[in-house]
Amino acid sequence: MKPAAQRLRFGVVGLGRLGKRHAENLAYRVPGALLAAACSPLADELAWARDALPEPRLYDDYADLLADPHVDAVWLVTPSSLHAQQIVDALRAGKHVFCEKPLSLDVAECERVLAEAARYPHLRAMIGFMRRFDPSYKDAFDKIAAGRIGRPFLVRSQTTDQNDTDGFFVRFAATSGGIFLDCTVHDIDVARWLLGKPRATRVFAAGAVALHEGLREFGDVDNGVAICEFEGGKLAMFYASRTQAHGNDTHSEVIGTAGALAIGHNPRANRVEIYDATGIRNECTPNFFDRFEDAFLHEARAFVAAVQGGAVRGGVVQDEAVQGEAAQAGATLADALEATRIGVALRESLRSGQAVTL
Amino acid sequence: MKPAAQRLRFGVVGLGRLGKRHAENLAYRVPGALLAAACSPLADELAWARDALPEPRLYDDYADLLADPHVDAVWLVTPSSLHAQQIVDALRAGKHVFCEKPLSLDVAECERVLAEAARYPHLRAMIGFMRRFDPSYKDAFDKIAAGRIGRPFLVRSQTTDQNDTDGFFVRFAATSGGIFLDCTVHDIDVARWLLGKPRATRVFAAGAVALHEGLREFGDVDNGVAICEFEGGKLAMFYASRTQAHGNDTHSEVIGTAGALAIGHNPRANRVEIYDATGIRNECTPNFFDRFEDAFLHEARAFVAAVQGGAVRGGVVQDEAVQGEAAQAGATLADALEATRIGVALRESLRSGQAVTL
Amino acid sequence: MKPAAQRLRFGVVGLGRLGKRHAENLAYRVPGALLAAACSPLADELAWARDALPEPRLYDDYADLLADPHVDAVWLVTPSSLHAQQIVDALRAGKHVFCEKPLSLDVAECERVLAEAARYPHLRAMIGFMRRFDPSYKDAFDKIAAGRIGRPFLVRSQTTDQNDTDGFFVRFAATSGGIFLDCTVHDIDVARWLLGKPRATRVFAAGAVALHEGLREFGDVDNGVAICEFEGGKLAMFYASRTQAHGNDTHSEVIGTAGALAIGHNPRANRVEIYDATGIRNECTPNFFDRFEDAFLHEARAFVAAVQGGAVRGGVVQDEAVQGEAAQAGATLADALEATRIGVALRESLRSGQAVTL
Amino acid sequence: MKPAAQRLRFGVVGLGRLGKRHAENLAYRVPGALLAAACSPLADELAWARDALPEPRLYDDYADLLADPHVDAVWLVTPSSLHAQQIVDALRAGKHVFCEKPLSLDVAECERVLAEAARYPHLRAMIGFMRRFDPSYKDAFDKIAAGRIGRPFLVRSQTTDQNDTDGFFVRFAATSGGIFLDCTVHDIDVARWLLGKPRATRVFAAGAVALHEGLREFGDVDNGVAICEFEGGKLAMFYASRTQAHGNDTHSEVIGTAGALAIGHNPRANRVEIYDATGIRNECTPNFFDRFEDAFLHEARAFVAAVQGGAVRGGVVQDEAVQGEAAQAGATLADALEATRIGVALRESLRSGQAVTL
Repeated sequence: MKPAAQRLRFGVVGLGRLGKRHAENLAYRVPGALLAAACSPLADELAWARDALPEPRLYDDYADLLADPHVDAVWLVTPSSLHAQQIVDALRAGKHVFCEKPLSLDVAECERVLAEAARYPHLRAMIGFMRRFDPSYKDAFDKIAAGRIGRPFLVRSQTTDQNDTDGFFVRFAATSGGIFLDCTVHDIDVARWLLGKPRATRVFAAGAVALHEGLREFGDVDNGVAICEFEGGKLAMFYASRTQAHGNDTHSEVIGTAGALAIGHNPRANRVEIYDATGIRNECTPNFFDRFEDAFLHEARAFVAAVQGGAVRGGVVQDEAVQGEAAQAGATLADALEATRIGVALRESLRSGQAVTL
Repeated sequence: MKPAAQRLRFGVVGLGRLGKRHAENLAYRVPGALLAAACSPLADELAWARDALPEPRLYDDYADLLADPHVDAVWLVTPSSLHAQQIVDALRAGKHVFCEKPLSLDVAECERVLAEAARYPHLRAMIGFMRRFDPSYKDAFDKIAAGRIGRPFLVRSQTTDQNDTDGFFVRFAATSGGIFLDCTVHDIDVARWLLGKPRATRVFAAGAVALHEGLREFGDVDNGVAICEFEGGKLAMFYASRTQAHGNDTHSEVIGTAGALAIGHNPRANRVEIYDATGIRNECTPNFFDRFEDAFLHEARAFVAAVQGGAVRGGVVQDEAVQGEAAQAGATLADALEATRIGVALRESLRSGQAVTL
Repeated sequence: MKPAAQRLRFGVVGLGRLGKRHAENLAYRVPGALLAAACSPLADELAWARDALPEPRLYDDYADLLADPHVDAVWLVTPSSLHAQQIVDALRAGKHVFCEKPLSLDVAECERVLAEAARYPHLRAMIGFMRRFDPSYKDAFDKIAAGRIGRPFLVRSQTTDQNDTDGFFVRFAATSGGIFLDCTVHDIDVARWLLGKPRATRVFAAGAVALHEGLREFGDVDNGVAICEFEGGKLAMFYASRTQAHGNDTHSEVIGTAGALAIGHNPRANRVEIYDATGIRNECTPNFFDRFEDAFLHEARAFVAAVQGGAVRGGVVQDEAVQGEAAQAGATLADALEATRIGVALRESLRSGQAVTL
Repeated sequence: MKPAAQRLRFGVVGLGRLGKRHAENLAYRVPGALLAAACSPLADELAWARDALPEPRLYDDYADLLADPHVDAVWLVTPSSLHAQQIVDALRAGKHVFCEKPLSLDVAECERVLAEAARYPHLRAMIGFMRRFDPSYKDAFDKIAAGRIGRPFLVRSQTTDQNDTDGFFVRFAATSGGIFLDCTVHDIDVARWLLGKPRATRVFAAGAVALHEGLREFGDVDNGVAICEFEGGKLAMFYASRTQAHGNDTHSEVIGTAGALAIGHNPRANRVEIYDATGIRNECTPNFFDRFEDAFLHEARAFVAAVQGGAVRGGVVQDEAVQGEAAQAGATLADALEATRIGVALRESLRSGQAVTL
């Protein structure tokens, strides 16, 4: 455990459901982190922070938080449309920045952030593709790296949510970017990461409205399928759904020349099996939030390690191998740009019915 | 396919549900067999035989069937209490004999049958412990024989039925011999077979009446557990139940010094998994009849191979290795005697609350 | 069991590995069938038939078999390029006809067969998409029909083979039609069957050569992925592979508005699980032949029932409901035409890199 | 998060592998806890504490730690033989006490601790049967409480370790109490907990030495099986092993009149499945330490909640329901006494070959 004086001082921005979880992780579960500040425009979120967090300085304005000299890094859990500018502002203020995905729904905007970030090479920016930090995804990545399945050439990956009868995402459709940019973007990042970051060359997508007719006016669907071709003869297939009956079912497979790995095929809620007159069953993870609880924590630890590996604030790198690996594991701005570029192409293909060449 | 003149001519005795299945197997699915005759005291069973089987000679009296010179072997699917005497009568009439388990519920009676059978070494007698012929049990047996789990020293095996709300087995309790002789006898045979036929030295049993209070008057239980010690430090644990909610759940595990094998852990009805709001589930095999459909067929084929390996009626042995193996795989009268001996000891232990030394 | 005089008399044509299995099924395991004749140009196959089958008349010329008045139906297990003409010849000879898939690799040729068959409405023609008769696929079909998953709108289905280091299918590539017409054609039929036979409107395909470089000269791949859009907003995703390490892994999922079904997700070879230092595992079905052993048998029974439901040769229909269902379950010539039409479009998409509209 | 002044101040005693984990949990992951002190006779363990923990006061003598007025509770992770006296000393010093299992290997000594503890009703003492806090075990407990399986009447539970070729536990055999008191004691507690804490009436045990001959001189075995009868017709079956090939395999089943629950049947290491030429497999949890990582954390949180539910140090009870439940969930001294009583009887049965009545 580092003394407080050597810890990375975070300001969390956005204290919705996911923001709260990130804040608690940084406050209590990441040895090298210190939660110094929190920012939200909502009074009740700030009230929560006052009660639940260890005496952070509180801000209702992001600019004020950026001006706080006792904050080394910001952790953005804000609406997607704000991400790009907030990242740029943080870098300009000299802060490291973690930001929830997506970087932006707009490719040009992503590129502007990258250009700006290039001016601050000593600052770290990471986008929150948390699956990379899930222990099972990480184990698969390591097995691939160790050659256990030969040369990987195909990823099949899905992000599917339990049907929300409340229809939240229908109301959200106007700004979500559509199912591929909102959901599949995770699978895109997983595919690139597990296949060695090949460049995408062509995509095709199709979709169906199974239950939520309200999506049609936005050109969106509640179930989408897609194929992505990469250079070097690599492939990915994606499935996204908002209408599953059994729960959040996020899984991925990687197929190689000498074997394959499946990650999360049955989204078991826990280790319990129920035997009754309907058969033998397991319950399923209800949402991504529960599924990736551990991943969010490992992500925060990796971010701290990555920053401290860069010798920020005089921190001594205790284990270079670990920190190098951690630094490598997180999605860079360039990764996030690629995920958006592919996601945008998928949306275009969905709308045009044609394959889209990148 | 052998010409009819070289096939083993069977007379099936008893045409209840299981008898019908055996008869159909012998009639249509066992290349070396010819179903020559059938016997039942019940008119409707004989009527079924007339319609469903390929022109067998029909008898309502077992003695008449034994007198039929065109029958080489009898296949007994009769009430347990008749087995011993019917086997003896068949052997005296010069017929090979297959008989459903158990040989007898009485150890002394088992011994009398063995003594009588010793006088007819050219005739084959096999008792129907069909699990030995189930492809999965057979695969486990072969893997053990190949040394895949080192030295096997512990078997855990269970025979559990879906609860029968009709309470058939309560009415049957007076003559079933109790749960250990009726159900666990299969697990006993499995344990001996998979552990290399060690001699049992001590047993302990306990039980519970979960649902069927009517069993108490017979000293029986609807759930029983037991431990059996064998010479050479080998062990078995048994569980029998009449009250499962999810189906017939027959499974066994064999634990060795270098690994273990589980056979049938989840009694899947088929390859379908159902995803719905209750989770992910599979349906289960409803009863032993469906679970062991293939085993009954392989059992019949093995019996024919075993007899023909003995050069009966001038049959040419085409594949000695296969036939030797088949002959070995079936339960002998001695195996059936041991199963009854252990089952009786378990019942005694259940009643006395004490370990019983064999 | 029907007397021989009421059974459907078959002539099997082609006695390769699969032909032998079909022949044995018809000879011994289909109560309403009588294997009357067999045809092969190869002497050793005819020799096998002489030994293994119950005295069939043997032909080395298909025309001679068609001229045999004691044959009611032909069962074609011949090279794909012969199927179309052989079906037409059989119908012209007044025989019912079962033919292994595909009907033809050429859409126009498929259409010619349909046109010809329309002239013989009293004769039955069925194409061998055997998955429809696999008990698990059948169970899924029935559950869907019973409304268990709401309205089905997406099928994901795959046909993947264990890698054949011998490279048989590379030599076969010139005539196989490519991976989509050879393998995916099964998944296409499954998707149409489970989704209620919607009309396909657009497809996209992509592929990779993972191991077998020799395929490139034929424009073929050893791994292919595809999306198929159907009218009514229904979708299918397909995966085909020749290079799996673990075995033949044929599985399908059907996703509906109220749940989903997976068929064969883990291609377990049997009910055994192996516990050793590498973890807990099951072995896998090595090939489609073993995986669909039961399906081939049910298929033959269904064909007989379908023909006899049509009152051929004075046969009395004993159970109209069963026979109606069986008749419905088999793939018609029209189904086979659609499968070929979609498969050809997939191949075109693979080659062009563009979506293909049907 | 409570201010430091309201947190429960712990002194951890014993800093071996498990002690370190407990210490880190209390230091960083239990909001209501404050790690105030640590005690070990070993210099390197104290050095670790100095580096890894947030500035605890360090002691090499337990009496000194007990004299520290800034410690509210002790957390004992010391050798089993010290537990009883250390608990008594802690209570006499006015400290709450958590102690790793077992309370003692001697029933009379357990009873002396209970008698002493009765004099300090305002102090809490909990024994570390951590399975009660594992999320899957907890889920099963809750489902049983909700009536989901009817009346539970049979528990089958096992504690099996991966074979330790180093033979640590052989050297440990002289003081471990034998396999039933060392391993099965967890299953005994699970069975009592899930069955509603019935009184045990009779036990029988048997065992085998599969690999570790050195155990014989201690009257111990490396594989043990047992049956335990409880009042009210409830039953338990236990299996303990030191020699598994595949990993630590801790699982339990509870069978009720309307269904059953299995907890941890396949001890999956994570959500990854590996497909290769040997089949499809998952890796297994290597040891209890990894398997119960979460349980140890929940256990610590529950202990704090239990103490604070008792209004210690003016703590405000924020959620009485939760705290009441937590208090109930932990094993009391009486539970630990019963576990030892049954474990001792099992050892006696193993040695005598006779059933032992309690």
